[in-house]
Amino acid sequence: MVFNMNKLINIQLSEDENAVIILDQRLLPSKTEYLRLSTADEMYDAIKYLKIRGAPAIGIFAAYAMYVLSKSPQRTLSEYGDYLKSSRPTAVNLQWAVERMLKAENLREECHAIHREDIAMCKAISENGLSLIKDGEAVLTHCNAGPLATSQYGTGLGPLILGSERGMHFKAYVDETRPLLQGARITALELMNAGVDVTLICDNMAGEVMKAGKVNAVFTGCDRVAANGDTANKIGTCGVAVLAKHYRVPFYVFCPSSTIDSSCSSGADIVIEERDTSEIIDLYFKEPVAPLGVKCCNPSFDVTPAELITAIVTEKGIINPARLL
Amino acid sequence: MVFNMNKLINIQLSEDENAVIILDQRLLPSKTEYLRLSTADEMYDAIKYLKIRGAPAIGIFAAYAMYVLSKSPQRTLSEYGDYLKSSRPTAVNLQWAVERMLKAENLREECHAIHREDIAMCKAISENGLSLIKDGEAVLTHCNAGPLATSQYGTGLGPLILGSERGMHFKAYVDETRPLLQGARITALELMNAGVDVTLICDNMAGEVMKAGKVNAVFTGCDRVAANGDTANKIGTCGVAVLAKHYRVPFYVFCPSSTIDSSCSSGADIVIEERDTSEIIDLYFKEPVAPLGVKCCNPSFDVTPAELITAIVTEKGIINPARLL
Repeated sequence: MVFNMNKLINIQLSEDENAVIILDQRLLPSKTEYLRLSTADEMYDAIKYLKIRGAPAIGIFAAYAMYVLSKSPQRTLSEYGDYLKSSRPTAVNLQWAVERMLKAENLREECHAIHREDIAMCKAISENGLSLIKDGEAVLTHCNAGPLATSQYGTGLGPLILGSERGMHFKAYVDETRPLLQGARITALELMNAGVDVTLICDNMAGEVMKAGKVNAVFTGCDRVAANGDTANKIGTCGVAVLAKHYRVPFYVFCPSSTIDSSCSSGADIVIEERDTSEIIDLYFKEPVAPLGVKCCNPSFDVTPAELITAIVTEKGIINPARLL
Repeated sequence: MVFNMNKLINIQLSEDENAVIILDQRLLPSKTEYLRLSTADEMYDAIKYLKIRGAPAIGIFAAYAMYVLSKSPQRTLSEYGDYLKSSRPTAVNLQWAVERMLKAENLREECHAIHREDIAMCKAISENGLSLIKDGEAVLTHCNAGPLATSQYGTGLGPLILGSERGMHFKAYVDETRPLLQGARITALELMNAGVDVTLICDNMAGEVMKAGKVNAVFTGCDRVAANGDTANKIGTCGVAVLAKHYRVPFYVFCPSSTIDSSCSSGADIVIEERDTSEIIDLYFKEPVAPLGVKCCNPSFDVTPAELITAIVTEKGIINPARLL
């Protein structure tokens, strides 16, 4: 499969400006199917059920969604905003984009501005991150922080994609990222498309890859950074950080500075969603992989404490998380 | 599904003693299908393709297999032994059982003796392990070291099953154990059947469970222990051990003393099998979960260094791995 990411647009306003059109990311890599979302319920579900995902992409999507909903008089814009914000409580970019739209005078201009600014921001994050690796080096990734989760280069994957564009050669060991397999389904696709040498692994192989000296750094995105540098990201991220510390591999977190939530004092204040059992036992499988009636624990995120993070990379620069305080 | 493990026999000699009958463990938990294996090739494949699995069970199976093959004059028993041993180079019990059968005078008596001794040994391991946990406590497991991998109680799961039989109440957090999902498919089944309170998790959630203080210990089996205490077990075990050290959770390895291979000086001498890409991207899935042509790295085992192991529990007692030297 030759796959040209340049032709894949993850979020756009419909021509009549009465809907937001998104690529349904749950179906990748097998199918590229676009969804036209025109009601608040459809938009809420798109966020909740991960049809659209990635902190920056959710923000951009929410901005377009608020513009489209502003034309529907059933509820006030503020009510629509509250409803959208409740679809995914850990996503601070969602809250931020909704608030910004609520304050805007020209909603049409504002949603496009949010999108444009994100493209510029991802490029700046990628440029900063590129200073952390050398041509020929290898990086371990967890979950997905690429173009489909943002607007162009991505955050955590941005340095690899930007570097590839400039003729550099990188390797990536990609954690498949259970239960929803965003690493296998999306990160591997985006990086292969960009010309990065990709090796897919199961999550429980990350330690072995580090022990064998195969990676020079870990790059991940994040959903929320507390004021003290504690970072919420996809479940398993903190485990990778513990392994990285044990094997002395630098662990870098990438995000727009808007992800740093100064109103949240530490990771202890971050609410972790518990998701459905079916994600673990049957969603992607031919048949259930566990006995009927088994209980599951399925936290969607975990919090990596600041002391396990080598640096946080934003569009503004590279920050030691201990300096955030 | 109510499932009575007492009715499930994982290995037995056929009535005519011309075949070994095994439960095909690849099909659990959905199907219980028995396979009749009468040729050396079928027996080799059963080990290689994990139809039969678990270090002690492979040993018992190999003993019965050698007895059955001893009646087939196409090759010498020594040639059959070499062939079976090559099916899974890391399985020291396989080598041990084949060697013991080669030295035996009465092969029919010897294979039954190996089976009987394993049952007694598992019970002794379970009894020793039961001293490490208190009624009401919780344990994290990785992969499978239960009755289906051995002959009755299992090794790593034995204390939980023996304790349940005595009216004690244990909780288990069960790593699903990608790529082959032995935790989800087999461990969860065996423990639920024994009355243990089971919670299934993805491998990348083990750290979160430890961080939240939900488990009092980690119990795993192992495939081979080197003379210095380094231990080979299912991929991801070493990562769990690193997390357990970080979160100060005791990490116990369970095995028959025959698994301790004094001819192997350290973990560096243990050959790690690299298994097929399809296990990661399509074996259990409705459709491939990664882009076509993606490279995978799929080491079947990893080696946990002795310093990360709190103790090794055998039928002879509880050993500090540092004392093995």
